[in-house]
Amino acid sequence: MKEDVSLACIGKIRSPLKSLEACPKQGHEGAPSARVEILPAFQAAMKGIKPGDRLVVLTWFHLADRTVLSVHPRHDTSKPKTGVFCTRSPNRPNPLGLHETRVVEVDEGALVVDPLEALDGTPVVDIKVSMSVKM
Amino acid sequence: MKEDVSLACIGKIRSPLKSLEACPKQGHEGAPSARVEILPAFQAAMKGIKPGDRLVVLTWFHLADRTVLSVHPRHDTSKPKTGVFCTRSPNRPNPLGLHETRVVEVDEGALVVDPLEALDGTPVVDIKVSMSVKM
Repeated sequence: MKEDVSLACIGKIRSPLKSLEACPKQGHEGAPSARVEILPAFQAAMKGIKPGDRLVVLTWFHLADRTVLSVHPRHDTSKPKTGVFCTRSPNRPNPLGLHETRVVEVDEGALVVDPLEALDGTPVVDIKVSMSVKM
Repeated sequence: MKEDVSLACIGKIRSPLKSLEACPKQGHEGAPSARVEILPAFQAAMKGIKPGDRLVVLTWFHLADRTVLSVHPRHDTSKPKTGVFCTRSPNRPNPLGLHETRVVEVDEGALVVDPLEALDGTPVVDIKVSMSVKM
């Protein structure tokens, strides 16, 4: 990677979360279930996913500010500014989101997962088996 | 993300692992410690990281085959071919690597972490607090 590389959009989140203000900071903080719609060109990569599987969905926070290098953790201004690499702020040079979740249903070209704290319309860039699963 | 987006290289892995054959499939399978060198433009984002912190390092598997959609899990041809989204194969449309690790030392512009199973020279694209840490 001598130069920057291009990330492909493989799908999109469909969620009842329609504004950033409505999104919990973490999935375990009351996030709803969501639908992960996979583009036709990438649907073969879903083969074998079944209800109950624990996955990590990787998203691209398309509304994030990529110039931010430090933040007050959890917007708490009583806390000192901290580098974004020791936070989970969506604002960071490459705004990749990691979402630990569980598959509820496998549909034609889509997964229903629970929970997922990303905004409706957020691009999906990868899906993997959860790091908590020993392979 | 109407179109593909560009991912910036924020740093590079320096590791005793000099060939793909030498790399364990997962960090917990005997991977060594490694040095995560951060480019000067992004070093402010390291502020606050300290020894003992559990982080996820996100890499870009620059040698991966992005056209692969299904694989035999862990190269075991006795297992049926499975979609890459329910594996952790490095070969996938967006070859992002997730590495759960622990900080051993914080140096000028670099972190020493243990373990890390990526090849020497692998580009780093993000660093976050581990998902196993409740914030």
